Amino acid sequence: MDIPSISSVRKHLVAAPGKPFELSKRNTADRSLFEDKSIAETSLKKDAAVINELKDIMYAEGKRSVLVILQGMDTSGKSGTIKSVFANTTPLGMEVKAFKAPSTNELARDYLWRVHNAVPRKGNVGIFDRSHYEDVLVAKVRNFASPEDIEQRYDQINDFEKHLIENGVSIVKCMLHIGYEEQGARLGERLVEAHKLWKFNPSDLDDRKRWPEFMAAYETAVQRCSTRHAPWYIIPADSRTRRNAMIARLVRGTLEDMKLKWPDPKLNPADYDIG
Amino acid sequence: MDIPSISSVRKHLVAAPGKPFELSKRNTADRSLFEDKSIAETSLKKDAAVINELKDIMYAEGKRSVLVILQGMDTSGKSGTIKSVFANTTPLGMEVKAFKAPSTNELARDYLWRVHNAVPRKGNVGIFDRSHYEDVLVAKVRNFASPEDIEQRYDQINDFEKHLIENGVSIVKCMLHIGYEEQGARLGERLVEAHKLWKFNPSDLDDRKRWPEFMAAYETAVQRCSTRHAPWYIIPADSRTRRNAMIARLVRGTLEDMKLKWPDPKLNPADYDIG
Repeated sequence: MDIPSISSVRKHLVAAPGKPFELSKRNTADRSLFEDKSIAETSLKKDAAVINELKDIMYAEGKRSVLVILQGMDTSGKSGTIKSVFANTTPLGMEVKAFKAPSTNELARDYLWRVHNAVPRKGNVGIFDRSHYEDVLVAKVRNFASPEDIEQRYDQINDFEKHLIENGVSIVKCMLHIGYEEQGARLGERLVEAHKLWKFNPSDLDDRKRWPEFMAAYETAVQRCSTRHAPWYIIPADSRTRRNAMIARLVRGTLEDMKLKWPDPKLNPADYDIG
Repeated sequence: MDIPSISSVRKHLVAAPGKPFELSKRNTADRSLFEDKSIAETSLKKDAAVINELKDIMYAEGKRSVLVILQGMDTSGKSGTIKSVFANTTPLGMEVKAFKAPSTNELARDYLWRVHNAVPRKGNVGIFDRSHYEDVLVAKVRNFASPEDIEQRYDQINDFEKHLIENGVSIVKCMLHIGYEEQGARLGERLVEAHKLWKFNPSDLDDRKRWPEFMAAYETAVQRCSTRHAPWYIIPADSRTRRNAMIARLVRGTLEDMKLKWPDPKLNPADYDIG
């Protein structure tokens, strides 16, 4: 088995814009792209190195940016993805933003205000660990906003993302799709491993009890907000290694599509006497 | 030759607080800590791995942070340091802030306003590529502020840093001390290497022409702002590998001094039924 091409990874994982989307048809344990784990490891390693190179060119260019949006239930591997896919990426030109429950100051503005504020600087790769999608996910399940407000938000989000893209931000949206059983196993690990216990939050169990409602909210969000300019990719996330490899392929693909080149500053070296 | 201990690196590089400081006595090509380049490479590699581990614990703890301040003339290797020392550090919990010429919006506030705003979040490592010290360096050399204002700033900066430290921020201040000759060679490289040309800014040559004034401004800043709570370290920066190795020792030392431990969330795992 070879490393699957970026286009085949995209085709396999995308929630096709404008088409009906059923989350239940996506297998969280799907291994068809990377049956062999060692191929996934090799692919991830290669892609991580290329991502680091291309990101440096984007930083030098300083005109465009990439925004990677990671969404998923607790334990689906948002932090793990960041650590693995960007393992070889030095922090220069990287921005990670973890969205937590909004502060009083943030709640005093519209829900996209803090998101816009966290958009990566030109030249940088930004990673959102959770995002504005929480405002149509947890906000919907827990009634933090009225159904009418939630309903408006899908189009608002699409318009906001379109605006970013038209202004030089390439967006990669990944839903880390983990199974209910696998989440149970991972929460169990958190309770017994010293270096994972700090991640355990009793409120995670409340979300777990509302699993079907969260899945329904994800399905709607993906259906409504998988657009041609910013499609959603549904990443089978029960296997950590394969999840990382798939996301690395997508991020690399986005950077490659940008046709990045070392900038030509239009200087004539002969004009400068360093002295 | 062995890897020099962190305490010996500190002792060798520190600008001792409260003592007279003469920059001209610091040799930019000093190799006495790492005579053997391969030892420097080994040391850097080991330290980078430990830094990444300790930073993860600090992130989990979420209560304290580390701020690494890098100052130096153009080409002294601020970006290179970030890329090397944090080569194995994933961007989760890292914040890099490059200070450029202040914007109109920033100039409408006091000079520390934008700096305070960029202080790393609790749990994170922040890196300043340039910093508030520009406000007593370039601001002094180019008369962006009156001599009276500059004079006040040293104490203001000391007070500001003390405030941060008292609120859980450990500060590591490194002056990347490069020689005039070496800078000339590196500027020359930028003019002939395609992937470096974008970094060349004709205004760098203006700063180069004022080398003695910049060195005098650095000397005063270090003398006045090397404090017991946040001493300045003067890093001989003509050798890139040794520069990186020395800074990695200092950053590791700061993290080790914090006695970081995986947090104990005071949970009783038996209380939770994952279901």
